[in-house]
Amino acid sequence: MSQSVPIEIGRWRHGVLEHTTDEVAAESPMEIRLGGVPLAVLMRTPGLDPDLVLGFCLTEAILLRPSEAASIDRIGEGEDARWEVRLADGVSVDPERYRRNAYTTSSCGVCGKASIDAVRIAAPPLPDEPFLSPEVVLSLPDRLAAAQPTFTATGGLHAAAAFNPAGELLAAAEDIGRHNAVDKLVGRLARGSWPITNTALVVSGRVSFEMVQKAAVAGIGVLCGVSAASSLAVELAQELGLTLVGFLRGDGFVVYARGDRVGAV
Amino acid sequence: MSQSVPIEIGRWRHGVLEHTTDEVAAESPMEIRLGGVPLAVLMRTPGLDPDLVLGFCLTEAILLRPSEAASIDRIGEGEDARWEVRLADGVSVDPERYRRNAYTTSSCGVCGKASIDAVRIAAPPLPDEPFLSPEVVLSLPDRLAAAQPTFTATGGLHAAAAFNPAGELLAAAEDIGRHNAVDKLVGRLARGSWPITNTALVVSGRVSFEMVQKAAVAGIGVLCGVSAASSLAVELAQELGLTLVGFLRGDGFVVYARGDRVGAV
Repeated sequence: MSQSVPIEIGRWRHGVLEHTTDEVAAESPMEIRLGGVPLAVLMRTPGLDPDLVLGFCLTEAILLRPSEAASIDRIGEGEDARWEVRLADGVSVDPERYRRNAYTTSSCGVCGKASIDAVRIAAPPLPDEPFLSPEVVLSLPDRLAAAQPTFTATGGLHAAAAFNPAGELLAAAEDIGRHNAVDKLVGRLARGSWPITNTALVVSGRVSFEMVQKAAVAGIGVLCGVSAASSLAVELAQELGLTLVGFLRGDGFVVYARGDRVGAV
Repeated sequence: MSQSVPIEIGRWRHGVLEHTTDEVAAESPMEIRLGGVPLAVLMRTPGLDPDLVLGFCLTEAILLRPSEAASIDRIGEGEDARWEVRLADGVSVDPERYRRNAYTTSSCGVCGKASIDAVRIAAPPLPDEPFLSPEVVLSLPDRLAAAQPTFTATGGLHAAAAFNPAGELLAAAEDIGRHNAVDKLVGRLARGSWPITNTALVVSGRVSFEMVQKAAVAGIGVLCGVSAASSLAVELAQELGLTLVGFLRGDGFVVYARGDRVGAV
């Protein structure tokens, strides 16, 4: 279950080839099964697997709350893994419906508007909290970096971390996949409360539509990226009233939506 | 069909909030239909859409060669798009089979070995070419950067570019999604020859399993990333004999597999 793997490499530098070993970020497939039926295969970095399973099911709105899962158990062994979600008594979910939705579209067609409408239905109305001072916001990238041990070793992982309004670290996760890092974090925090309250999320990369979707469905009111956001991410954040911050680095940041939660009004 | 969108932002810097406008990378959904049946929905940056459709169908081994598509036509208008692939006479593909494969696994289970085996079946044996000198390899990141106009404006796009062994740019593409950038490029080059020959591919970010898969299925023998590679990407490249280069920046690079094509033996 290591997050990095040693391999032999050649390193070319200043015209000289050196044979040496290096660490690369671990990547291997995980299958998620629901009530015995295959639901999805994720390429992920091993570690926090049960959190990833729970978080994925929640942020994709397959489960509506953590208590809908009676258990999450591993089947088989090794780096490659199958995980089985057993539903609580009285809960029924049709995995076929999710798989169809993931690859087909509603009769109203595919468009940014329809995508935003679908998230609005799945996401609870966001509360006003959390409120963070701009100084706390500016301190988050350093705190995120401190919570990225595998990135330091391999340079190959995305990270996500959750903070309370005082800027204290609640949880962190790393993964080769940016969405997986968020799902691991959501799965872990969801065991404490659902929706997740009074929490700001910081991610190491760019912010796309899906990242805003996952944060909003989890009830997280503040999402910060150290890099750029996409147009549909901004549109969704504005529509849902989620605070979206980008280019959070050095002594500045950009606010795309609902700046009042981070003192930018 | 713009690749970036102007939006109003707040910029917090040195304790001062400035209201201004900025450009963000465009992101909107695209539906791909095959013979009238919905195949996939991609979140993509508009632009090079027909190339993306063709490249996706080829690198996912839904089409085996470009000539299996008789036409690729747009249905409807606006940023959000539906594209219809009409199959050539005598060609038949079952979109259901692809959609099932994307979300379920074969009876032998999910594991890195099975994933690698599946790619080996879809990918043609790679030829020995291309051969690039280490000096040409070292020059590619600057040439890639010169082909990234939208990244320069927004900081929010991944880029991919194809070069011949002399380091001359053959084609470039940008997209909010890393895999889309590669698919756009493959779709464009596939119109010239298939499989794609004597070509090296450079990508702006990290190299995952799927990136190696897409390059190999297209017949591309050299894949370079400016950042890290994952363990399964390395394993697949070694298995297929694809030259995999990482951390290509400044005056050095790392070779993970088949260094002889880039003078690193």
